[in-house]
Amino acid sequence: MNAANILGAAQLESRRGRSDPYLAFRQELFDEGLLVPTGVDGLYLRAERFEEIVRGLDVLVSLAGRAEASATYHFPLVMSRALLDRTDYVRSFPDLLGTVQSFAGDDRAHAELLRTVEEGGEWVAHLEPTDIALCSAACHPLYPSQSGPLPFGGRTVEVYGQCFRHEPSVDPARMQAFRQHEFVYLGTPEGARRHRDLWVERALSLHRSLGLEVEAVVANDPFFGRSGRMLAANQRDEALKIEIVSPICSSESPTAITSANCHEDHFGLEFDIVADDGAVAHTACVGFGVERVTLALLHTHGLRKESWPPSVRNVLGL
Amino acid sequence: MNAANILGAAQLESRRGRSDPYLAFRQELFDEGLLVPTGVDGLYLRAERFEEIVRGLDVLVSLAGRAEASATYHFPLVMSRALLDRTDYVRSFPDLLGTVQSFAGDDRAHAELLRTVEEGGEWVAHLEPTDIALCSAACHPLYPSQSGPLPFGGRTVEVYGQCFRHEPSVDPARMQAFRQHEFVYLGTPEGARRHRDLWVERALSLHRSLGLEVEAVVANDPFFGRSGRMLAANQRDEALKIEIVSPICSSESPTAITSANCHEDHFGLEFDIVADDGAVAHTACVGFGVERVTLALLHTHGLRKESWPPSVRNVLGL
Repeated sequence: MNAANILGAAQLESRRGRSDPYLAFRQELFDEGLLVPTGVDGLYLRAERFEEIVRGLDVLVSLAGRAEASATYHFPLVMSRALLDRTDYVRSFPDLLGTVQSFAGDDRAHAELLRTVEEGGEWVAHLEPTDIALCSAACHPLYPSQSGPLPFGGRTVEVYGQCFRHEPSVDPARMQAFRQHEFVYLGTPEGARRHRDLWVERALSLHRSLGLEVEAVVANDPFFGRSGRMLAANQRDEALKIEIVSPICSSESPTAITSANCHEDHFGLEFDIVADDGAVAHTACVGFGVERVTLALLHTHGLRKESWPPSVRNVLGL
Repeated sequence: MNAANILGAAQLESRRGRSDPYLAFRQELFDEGLLVPTGVDGLYLRAERFEEIVRGLDVLVSLAGRAEASATYHFPLVMSRALLDRTDYVRSFPDLLGTVQSFAGDDRAHAELLRTVEEGGEWVAHLEPTDIALCSAACHPLYPSQSGPLPFGGRTVEVYGQCFRHEPSVDPARMQAFRQHEFVYLGTPEGARRHRDLWVERALSLHRSLGLEVEAVVANDPFFGRSGRMLAANQRDEALKIEIVSPICSSESPTAITSANCHEDHFGLEFDIVADDGAVAHTACVGFGVERVTLALLHTHGLRKESWPPSVRNVLGL
């Protein structure tokens, strides 16, 4: 079953065309009212019919891992700006980060701000930095709260996080604000590797139970610039990052919908997290890209849940 | 039933003390693990036990209004920056807004950025404005999509929105990032007033069914500066904004947990929204402050749901 039953011939033709598969699928999502454009590429209002799928998926992901999790936390899209520095994000991904500025002036400064607004000038020049940044990765806000010794066997925490990446794109799967449903492990190097490998298998099964065509591939993060190329090569050589990819806009270039990563002692060192053997903790996480899995389902089964296979609707409670 | 059954004597004493009721209640929420501090006042990680209440509340609010709503949308915490200007937010609330900056340079500029980071300098000086802002009010991202003629009788839209206000505070009810569950009406002046008045009554009933002590009061938005005082006085004179207040940290100064507002033609004019009689549309909204209602429930019934009145647990599905 696929989108064919609800698409007109012209829409299907445009979707099959290789010229712009991203624009074509995005337009279908707009036409169907699942996403509403905001005038900024990569920022959308989401319809209730989109969120229904998200809620079903969240329940499924939780069930798959909650038994091991000692706590479950929900994070906002903003965090302390200091974390961008402490996690090395400003070094590795400066082009994706977001920091927040606001106005801190008096009545007179306000009058100047308004003059610039009236003149159509760049009024943000009147603003000042705050100590807040957009959240760079769902698990980053967790680490400061994990400082100190871990219990025997380590700790697993479930995280409903929100992330920002400044990468305006017409690809509907490349949103600037999106959610990650994660399970983060903190403990020994072996525990971290086990958590990661276990979740690659679990995530493959979970996605296949939803009728998705998936594959696990070694991947790298989009480290910035010349120095970043070495970091990316190292990450691949060590197979630290495994992505689960599935077709969303294109079968030739499937999209990462879930990612499972070993961070080695990167966060353990910076945040003084100590494993049960007294060594610096290693960490690992699996992150389900909630919007991307939802889009993969819509691509695979069609834009209306009424046409989805009953088994998939059933497992998602739709 | 109240928090007494789970608080130690010292905690109760500190909570009764008038010196710092906000700090005291916040500490109780931290101690109980319902909120986790992030190092930034007004930004917290939320525990699953907090979100359970939020989910129950969302179902209840939806049931109260969804019959009238022709659509339901979910908004992210970020939006197009142009909206800050178009909604007059930059004029009226510059101190509360947030705009987003990011890095747009090359390898050389990146090296300079990193030098400033290493030296502990103000590295955000190396960033540039983006076209993205933090969402100023849950309903703001809705209006651009509503341009044009409205159907007969107007339109009601349900919105799950996220808001940002740059107002760091130790008051746990004054978060910098929070959610509003809204019903927005667009149509005639009479329709807007009716929507607002209907929702004041509905919200009072809904909150009372949850055992909350509530009261409706005429209020004003925190307009900035000298010129803002006039806007605030006008808003009060016209009784455009009604807040439903309930004790959270202090009985003497109850907190607004829900707000119902007439916007007159403020948004209709700017976004070319036209009522069924051909005139500029008036709009009105009711917004449930999801975190604040949750905190009012925790204050009123105690920090553990096990001690809550069965009727309240039942109505929230807890």
